[in-house]
Amino acid sequence: MDYSKMSPAEVRALIRTGEITTHTSGMCDGYAQANLVVLPYEDAYDFLLFTQRNPKACPILEVGDVGDKRIRTIAQNADVTTDIPKYRLYRDGVLAGEYTDVSDLWQDDFVFFLIGCSFSFESELIAADVPVRHIEEGVNVPMFITNIDCEPAGRFSGKAVVSMRPIPAGLIPRAAAVTAQMPRVHGAPIHVGDPEAIGIRDLSKPDFGDPVTFYPGELPVFWYCGVTPQSVVMNSKPRIAITHAPGHMFITDTKNISLKY
Amino acid sequence: MDYSKMSPAEVRALIRTGEITTHTSGMCDGYAQANLVVLPYEDAYDFLLFTQRNPKACPILEVGDVGDKRIRTIAQNADVTTDIPKYRLYRDGVLAGEYTDVSDLWQDDFVFFLIGCSFSFESELIAADVPVRHIEEGVNVPMFITNIDCEPAGRFSGKAVVSMRPIPAGLIPRAAAVTAQMPRVHGAPIHVGDPEAIGIRDLSKPDFGDPVTFYPGELPVFWYCGVTPQSVVMNSKPRIAITHAPGHMFITDTKNISLKY
Repeated sequence: MDYSKMSPAEVRALIRTGEITTHTSGMCDGYAQANLVVLPYEDAYDFLLFTQRNPKACPILEVGDVGDKRIRTIAQNADVTTDIPKYRLYRDGVLAGEYTDVSDLWQDDFVFFLIGCSFSFESELIAADVPVRHIEEGVNVPMFITNIDCEPAGRFSGKAVVSMRPIPAGLIPRAAAVTAQMPRVHGAPIHVGDPEAIGIRDLSKPDFGDPVTFYPGELPVFWYCGVTPQSVVMNSKPRIAITHAPGHMFITDTKNISLKY
Repeated sequence: MDYSKMSPAEVRALIRTGEITTHTSGMCDGYAQANLVVLPYEDAYDFLLFTQRNPKACPILEVGDVGDKRIRTIAQNADVTTDIPKYRLYRDGVLAGEYTDVSDLWQDDFVFFLIGCSFSFESELIAADVPVRHIEEGVNVPMFITNIDCEPAGRFSGKAVVSMRPIPAGLIPRAAAVTAQMPRVHGAPIHVGDPEAIGIRDLSKPDFGDPVTFYPGELPVFWYCGVTPQSVVMNSKPRIAITHAPGHMFITDTKNISLKY
């Protein structure tokens, strides 16, 4: 099956019935995908404030009403507990299980947060002839925990996580300009060059994802990463939390290009 | 005194000591000004969610910690209870008084929200040779309540308020392009032309502010307005709320140009 040409509604239907349980990279060309964080209402204000104070790391696409599983804005006829291929349940910050459906775990006090993902700007980079190395090499994007403190909010604080892409020096301005137009999916890079300046010791040993090849004349370019909110939430050990499993995203009905405006 | 060339810290010091109690239009050239809403914590989640769901009408610049009067991000050494020339106190949605200092009214459960203001993009429009009629005519910008429903959040719901500027038809693309670059101060226009399409009957009778002159070849251009959050908050009749008095804004240390990025 070529899922890249299917509509988000078609792919979500296959996810809902359990026919798709794989990662969603490359599915539904042109449509935005989203990170998921579900928290009980007792933690929702602090988390929402955290995202407001760290908008480049945590660009919110939609927040549900308390207890409501239905997605209303970025997709139609979608249920946040069934329409993601794989979920992770955390209790007190510790992984307590992986699920392909969390409708039985849903609670009346749960609030979902769907957060923009760099998958959206990567297709724009490729369209602008900027190479995206981890896609060329068929691996996951390399991600690093930095020494950059996020702005804390209530119980949530921690270091920012960045994704890194090697870019030919002459294309860095174009890469910055293309992504700066998409603030709802992390926006412009936050650092170019020297990794140690942001607390990264070894580009060949990412904290998450896979290492990628550098060619002569390329510099590392760093963007805030959607792993930041999950990392920060887990560090604060909430009583209960549900997230998507890495790479297993929610596919929206919202086109990447519409996130520019 | 020419306040336009003074620094925000200098003008805030004069406001704090009561030497300035007037509106802040034209003060501190190049620096952003902000709308104020203060609510008790019991209403803060719903209001923060409302701003997240209506980012063009309610672009948040800073949210305080619960009980904290100090502004930390968009200005230094600033106190939200003393550094605005005039405040309004509302009880159950009814105006209960105007004050030049609300430090005695502050409560341990209060949360402040500072929200972007179209003063920022107006200076950019003028710099781009787009006329801003109400500034030319020395009056307040005309504002209208539309038939556009904001996305509701908890106890907060209501119609969007827009500001209107007559723009020569040939300059409308430039006005849209300039303001689209500034999403933190309302961003691009939301409507051009026919006022009735968004529920406005008579451009000569604004709901807030003053009417302005139209010249031949001009069309009305509408932007979401920072009066929206105040209007919505008052409609929902919170137990207590504090806002700035219209036109009497908080002057930040943040340059307008930095709100582009």
